[in-house]
Amino acid sequence: MPKIAIVQAGTVLYDKAATLAKVKKYVDEAAENGAELVLFPEVFIGGYPKWNNFGITMGTRTPEGRKEFKRYFENAIEEHGEESKVLEALAGQQNIHIVIGVVEREAGTLYCSVFFYSPEGYLGKHRKLLPTALERCVWGQGDGSTMPVFDTKVGNIGSAICWENYMPLYRMSLYNKEIQIYLAPTVDDRDVWLSTMRTIALEGRCFVVSACQFLKSSAYPSDHALRKEHGDDTILIRGGSCAVDPLGGVLVEPDFSQETIRYTEFDLSDIALGKMDLDVVGHYSRPDVFQLNVNEKPMSTVTRN
Amino acid sequence: MPKIAIVQAGTVLYDKAATLAKVKKYVDEAAENGAELVLFPEVFIGGYPKWNNFGITMGTRTPEGRKEFKRYFENAIEEHGEESKVLEALAGQQNIHIVIGVVEREAGTLYCSVFFYSPEGYLGKHRKLLPTALERCVWGQGDGSTMPVFDTKVGNIGSAICWENYMPLYRMSLYNKEIQIYLAPTVDDRDVWLSTMRTIALEGRCFVVSACQFLKSSAYPSDHALRKEHGDDTILIRGGSCAVDPLGGVLVEPDFSQETIRYTEFDLSDIALGKMDLDVVGHYSRPDVFQLNVNEKPMSTVTRN
Amino acid sequence: MPKIAIVQAGTVLYDKAATLAKVKKYVDEAAENGAELVLFPEVFIGGYPKWNNFGITMGTRTPEGRKEFKRYFENAIEEHGEESKVLEALAGQQNIHIVIGVVEREAGTLYCSVFFYSPEGYLGKHRKLLPTALERCVWGQGDGSTMPVFDTKVGNIGSAICWENYMPLYRMSLYNKEIQIYLAPTVDDRDVWLSTMRTIALEGRCFVVSACQFLKSSAYPSDHALRKEHGDDTILIRGGSCAVDPLGGVLVEPDFSQETIRYTEFDLSDIALGKMDLDVVGHYSRPDVFQLNVNEKPMSTVTRN
Amino acid sequence: MPKIAIVQAGTVLYDKAATLAKVKKYVDEAAENGAELVLFPEVFIGGYPKWNNFGITMGTRTPEGRKEFKRYFENAIEEHGEESKVLEALAGQQNIHIVIGVVEREAGTLYCSVFFYSPEGYLGKHRKLLPTALERCVWGQGDGSTMPVFDTKVGNIGSAICWENYMPLYRMSLYNKEIQIYLAPTVDDRDVWLSTMRTIALEGRCFVVSACQFLKSSAYPSDHALRKEHGDDTILIRGGSCAVDPLGGVLVEPDFSQETIRYTEFDLSDIALGKMDLDVVGHYSRPDVFQLNVNEKPMSTVTRN
Amino acid sequence: MPKIAIVQAGTVLYDKAATLAKVKKYVDEAAENGAELVLFPEVFIGGYPKWNNFGITMGTRTPEGRKEFKRYFENAIEEHGEESKVLEALAGQQNIHIVIGVVEREAGTLYCSVFFYSPEGYLGKHRKLLPTALERCVWGQGDGSTMPVFDTKVGNIGSAICWENYMPLYRMSLYNKEIQIYLAPTVDDRDVWLSTMRTIALEGRCFVVSACQFLKSSAYPSDHALRKEHGDDTILIRGGSCAVDPLGGVLVEPDFSQETIRYTEFDLSDIALGKMDLDVVGHYSRPDVFQLNVNEKPMSTVTRN
Amino acid sequence: MPKIAIVQAGTVLYDKAATLAKVKKYVDEAAENGAELVLFPEVFIGGYPKWNNFGITMGTRTPEGRKEFKRYFENAIEEHGEESKVLEALAGQQNIHIVIGVVEREAGTLYCSVFFYSPEGYLGKHRKLLPTALERCVWGQGDGSTMPVFDTKVGNIGSAICWENYMPLYRMSLYNKEIQIYLAPTVDDRDVWLSTMRTIALEGRCFVVSACQFLKSSAYPSDHALRKEHGDDTILIRGGSCAVDPLGGVLVEPDFSQETIRYTEFDLSDIALGKMDLDVVGHYSRPDVFQLNVNEKPMSTVTRN
Repeated sequence: MPKIAIVQAGTVLYDKAATLAKVKKYVDEAAENGAELVLFPEVFIGGYPKWNNFGITMGTRTPEGRKEFKRYFENAIEEHGEESKVLEALAGQQNIHIVIGVVEREAGTLYCSVFFYSPEGYLGKHRKLLPTALERCVWGQGDGSTMPVFDTKVGNIGSAICWENYMPLYRMSLYNKEIQIYLAPTVDDRDVWLSTMRTIALEGRCFVVSACQFLKSSAYPSDHALRKEHGDDTILIRGGSCAVDPLGGVLVEPDFSQETIRYTEFDLSDIALGKMDLDVVGHYSRPDVFQLNVNEKPMSTVTRN
Repeated sequence: MPKIAIVQAGTVLYDKAATLAKVKKYVDEAAENGAELVLFPEVFIGGYPKWNNFGITMGTRTPEGRKEFKRYFENAIEEHGEESKVLEALAGQQNIHIVIGVVEREAGTLYCSVFFYSPEGYLGKHRKLLPTALERCVWGQGDGSTMPVFDTKVGNIGSAICWENYMPLYRMSLYNKEIQIYLAPTVDDRDVWLSTMRTIALEGRCFVVSACQFLKSSAYPSDHALRKEHGDDTILIRGGSCAVDPLGGVLVEPDFSQETIRYTEFDLSDIALGKMDLDVVGHYSRPDVFQLNVNEKPMSTVTRN
Repeated sequence: MPKIAIVQAGTVLYDKAATLAKVKKYVDEAAENGAELVLFPEVFIGGYPKWNNFGITMGTRTPEGRKEFKRYFENAIEEHGEESKVLEALAGQQNIHIVIGVVEREAGTLYCSVFFYSPEGYLGKHRKLLPTALERCVWGQGDGSTMPVFDTKVGNIGSAICWENYMPLYRMSLYNKEIQIYLAPTVDDRDVWLSTMRTIALEGRCFVVSACQFLKSSAYPSDHALRKEHGDDTILIRGGSCAVDPLGGVLVEPDFSQETIRYTEFDLSDIALGKMDLDVVGHYSRPDVFQLNVNEKPMSTVTRN
Repeated sequence: MPKIAIVQAGTVLYDKAATLAKVKKYVDEAAENGAELVLFPEVFIGGYPKWNNFGITMGTRTPEGRKEFKRYFENAIEEHGEESKVLEALAGQQNIHIVIGVVEREAGTLYCSVFFYSPEGYLGKHRKLLPTALERCVWGQGDGSTMPVFDTKVGNIGSAICWENYMPLYRMSLYNKEIQIYLAPTVDDRDVWLSTMRTIALEGRCFVVSACQFLKSSAYPSDHALRKEHGDDTILIRGGSCAVDPLGGVLVEPDFSQETIRYTEFDLSDIALGKMDLDVVGHYSRPDVFQLNVNEKPMSTVTRN
Repeated sequence: MPKIAIVQAGTVLYDKAATLAKVKKYVDEAAENGAELVLFPEVFIGGYPKWNNFGITMGTRTPEGRKEFKRYFENAIEEHGEESKVLEALAGQQNIHIVIGVVEREAGTLYCSVFFYSPEGYLGKHRKLLPTALERCVWGQGDGSTMPVFDTKVGNIGSAICWENYMPLYRMSLYNKEIQIYLAPTVDDRDVWLSTMRTIALEGRCFVVSACQFLKSSAYPSDHALRKEHGDDTILIRGGSCAVDPLGGVLVEPDFSQETIRYTEFDLSDIALGKMDLDVVGHYSRPDVFQLNVNEKPMSTVTRN
Repeated sequence: MPKIAIVQAGTVLYDKAATLAKVKKYVDEAAENGAELVLFPEVFIGGYPKWNNFGITMGTRTPEGRKEFKRYFENAIEEHGEESKVLEALAGQQNIHIVIGVVEREAGTLYCSVFFYSPEGYLGKHRKLLPTALERCVWGQGDGSTMPVFDTKVGNIGSAICWENYMPLYRMSLYNKEIQIYLAPTVDDRDVWLSTMRTIALEGRCFVVSACQFLKSSAYPSDHALRKEHGDDTILIRGGSCAVDPLGGVLVEPDFSQETIRYTEFDLSDIALGKMDLDVVGHYSRPDVFQLNVNEKPMSTVTRN
């Protein structure tokens, strides 16, 4: 009966240290409440600078936009960097699993990633395969080598970030790896998100847990143009975190009003209740008609030997 | 701006003639109301004998169950049989497209199929790829050769029947064929069905139209055990037909109270509104990571030459 | 509800005229009793010279054996020969279907064939694909061009002769053609024959009707060595004709004691009772695993154009 | 002269440990009596919950039925799981071959499998290709990659489970692999089963050994609804295990009265007696007319590289 | 029991009239002796100018050789010419079949042909397909349109001329047409010819009748160089005509000493004695391995329409 | 100038070891006499149980006959079996080619085969395409995949077994492969065999070498019924081995009196002497009229992938 904490909160934009402190606060709270895993939203570290356009229009990038990007770039973290070690230590200290959205920097490119930590240490990461719309101007694309499902004490866990949840083939690859707890960090706060989460739970016969940021304009630094324009209390991302069981039943209803931490607890063996009549990678598949091949090799345009 | 009629009604069980009369009534009504396409629910002809178990438990089939099956078998129709010709004529007379769920019989096996008719004649069929639960005891499986998307005056149409809607790879094959109007005949009357339809509309950036049966126990013949047990007014399938636009907006809300015919009208060019930021078979795909091969060859265990 | 007459009788060996008279007698009797189809055993015309060895041992054929063969050869009939026209006329006069085993002669080779006649005329033939044991020294092999299932007023009929019934792939080809009444003319009078017939009925979900010869040594001409040796009353083939329904139920029990004509009557629509849970060419097949290709082209080592 | 023990017994339903103890008891007894191979019936481990319907009717699955399924799911075993290792050890200790029907679990789907063990270790498995009737709601389908015939010290062994014995093409694939001892674990206790076994022995010219469960209602847990309804002594599966030689002779007659272990012993070289006049994959085949291709590649709807 | 006359005689070279008179003489004699068919040797009319070389060496043709050819050319006959009508009349008058080798002229080319006449008239012809050695300098090649087997009162008759008897595929085409009396007009007088005739009889299970010329140097005109050189009594072709039954038994032994007419009589139904164990176009063929296609269309390099 | 040894000897029936010893004896003798190739008769290993009928008459096989067959079956050898390895070694040790008739066993069927060994190892085999008369009850049919002509140091060698020599199309396939030494192992001891061999040599313009068994009744085990009946000295097969040159000249005359080994030596370049005026696969063919297609694909009614 794993207990999972869902953090619905927002980044302190362009302030890595403050954001890390916020992570620690929520991890501690979750651990105190007995959670075995705590899920943070998409790019909680690094941030989702909502309404920002980085000075980009068709054919133009402004010098100011470039400076904004530089600031964003500098607040990203590296896979084996200092901040990652802090998170690893925290998971160990609190004996908890931490799954957290981050802006990952590798060389000159940023990625929208999820880092996984167990009490025993860093497990690995998932990089978003396809950024959406303007995200394509700030994040690169992941590849097939970072699509893990980890077999942990809590259960088999993996993640799909934001609109990756609308990629049927990526979901299939997760189901095929026997995902039990499907983690969906996001910044999508539409009403319809819950519908999507319920459908994925039904389709995959797994538990689905989604953490969305709750972000107000005050998250921007006080000198930031957007904060100046919108004041401190405009809600940029309104939350909507939720959890669903394998038969589509809602375990945690969305809350669109506040930063919060929510808990859910369930019995993984109930997955069998749903697999009875639907198993899209087992008895409900048609390998004679549909053959999905997943390429998990790392892709880099330059390799050396 | 195709106008589509959604028939939410029930089969007259084990009475093919009466069911055909009902089909005619609804087609006439839809045509009079200016619809260009009328969608009937899953197995409207042939019927969905809800709550029936055909005398089947683990290891046993009763003689009574076999007789029930024989009755069911005899109320199925053939692709080029007499009833199909009646439907073809009807579509021509009323200048309308008819898309209808049927129990199809070929040799000794039944299939859960959808037959498509345009005003110009019979277009073809889709056979359900994977029956669900007890359906597996009465229907065979379709193959990759009957997964059409037809380019009609109304738009590109195709169908997914009931829980086929939970088959990500089948949906991908329909998106890949540029489906515009995704037709989902069903007998699934759960609340969560609408969530699923909205998610598919969002994922596929297409219009989704679903027709569910509304079936009362009086649909069974008066001498039938289930009718005797449940009386005439027990609701076996409660409807919930709906329509959704490519951004997940609900065009027709479910009605769980009655037999009814509902209409929806939309502009196919609005699909572009959604394709801007999501096209899972185009800019939002990762062919370097995911390769789905679809086998559309007919499969028969015996071939002759 | 076709009514079928099963003739359990024996050839007048080497006396084609007397044998034809016997055919006429049984056809007349069957017709008077209301049968719509009359089935005769394997090689009823031409005969099965049981216990004969045609003077053949490893490496030798005696002149006497060759003369016996010549006699046998001359008592065979041709597809469109005089005797076939007599049978055709008989079927028309008595308004009955005749299915009869014959020794067929084409050029220099004999075949163990079944000729089919409807009241409207000659329908076609089946040639045994593989003679058994010594039969291989007197009969050639048929090919894929004579494996018909005829759609008649009585039902879909086809035949498998004697040990062809042990050829799984031939049976599959008949099931695939939607055989309803599986006719098995034979001279196999073992106890276990009924087991085989029941198994085929179960496997194919069809009605199986088998006619076996009842042959005494007096069937040989009075001057024949085997008759001299065994007298007139030795039973060479003891019958065992039978009929089975699609669930393996025995409709006509074997009679091993006499020449006789037996009748069976059944409802073809009961095939559906069995197809419910087994249809080896439909829902109970695995075309993704097993692909049987049947070559129905006529095969002649010399063709002309 | 291999000696084979045929266990006619029943599962302790939903009690894996007790069932394993029962397996051990019979293996020990068989080994003490000199058997070189012991055959258990279909799904002896995991069980065949006869008369159960898992709460399934057309269009419905009840929560109770799902719970029953979960219980069933948890009593299944995995190919390389703990229970399999126990069986492997047992075969080694007793220097015996164990061939046993099991409910196999892989990820979210169950399969009706047969596991093969030699004294040297685990040999492999066969998964039922096509579950029958309600079985289709609880078991998935095997594919062509698990249709082995093993060349063992006892002889060439393979298996066909229950109604797979009515699949002509599967049987052909076994004959083609030179099966000598055809093992048919089953729960089919009809009278006609013996006819089927005799026909297969005749057709395949092999020894056929069939083990059927003997199961009483007391096999259900004491709190189970079916046990409450039927008491302890209702016979759910009545046995009928048997053995047949290649000419169709019955070596072990069915016993429909009790749990029992039966023995048979035979000389494999007697297969030649039957091959003399029938070899459906050799001299009695027509490769020019019938071409059966068997696809033995594993089929999974998702593959990774 | 057809009776056949075999004429072993020689042409009167370059004297068509005298040769025709000789034909008449032998036809009359044969008819008087009760023959139903009379066979003449290869090119009996037109002649086989043995030892002649028509002035041909590699690279040279002499004017004298050309004149010799002209003389030969003028002694050839046409299919529907005067001489043919004479033969036709003769066959009618004597109520006999005449099969005779002739040099046939069509336009500018000569052919080595066999003309067939029945009492009812001219039946048709066979043209040698491949002249041998120097024959290639005086005769053209026949094609597939003149390879008849005629169904006559005497039996099915056809012919192969001289070394055509060594063409396996031509022989197959004759067997395939159910030839019963295989006629082999020749000028081959080697000892080994009888071996060849016996082998063909055995292979084709037919009666073989061969007529060879008996030709002395006196057959040349008295002014001819060869006659001057060799005198009158040098034997150019020594005969060796023979007849064989379908089991290879010699009916007429060769006579190498004289001009003669020989008779043979046999029972066509004895062909069955041989077909029992060999029928190379029936039970002893392998159409799955060997496919012989025979093109019987006339071939002319220029056609008009 | 290849020197060839022709073994005219008989099998020790049902005694594989003694027969192998006999093979060794003759191979050694042939090698000592300088032969480069030694030819054994048809089924020298496995044997030709002349006059035996395996208890077969029309419609019956006796248990004794089946036992005889089993004995025969057990004395057959496999292509890559132990005995074949012995022969391979022998060919290497004696630096000789061995071409030997064997009864080959594959799975449940026997074949009449010829195995070819060079000093370098096993070359391959030819399986008789069509057994004759009673042979059809004990041997299966070969297919087009085993009709080799091997290019060896001795020349191009291939074989036709017994009455395959009467199959014109098979002979054509050998000529087409440029056979030079046509090997005809046989048990046909008729006078007419030499005629056939001469005709084939003439037709194919190749050297023909035929080895026939010399078999006395003492070849049967002492307890065998045929030996008891016929004593020890009855001649069952009387030999008649021979060799012929490409112009039909007899190189080795038949000897019908004894077991013996005969030698022949010839110059392969003499084939040109005969090809000058006859080449049935070259200048003496008519490809515009006759098209022979040879299917050399292996034929198995079951294939796997």
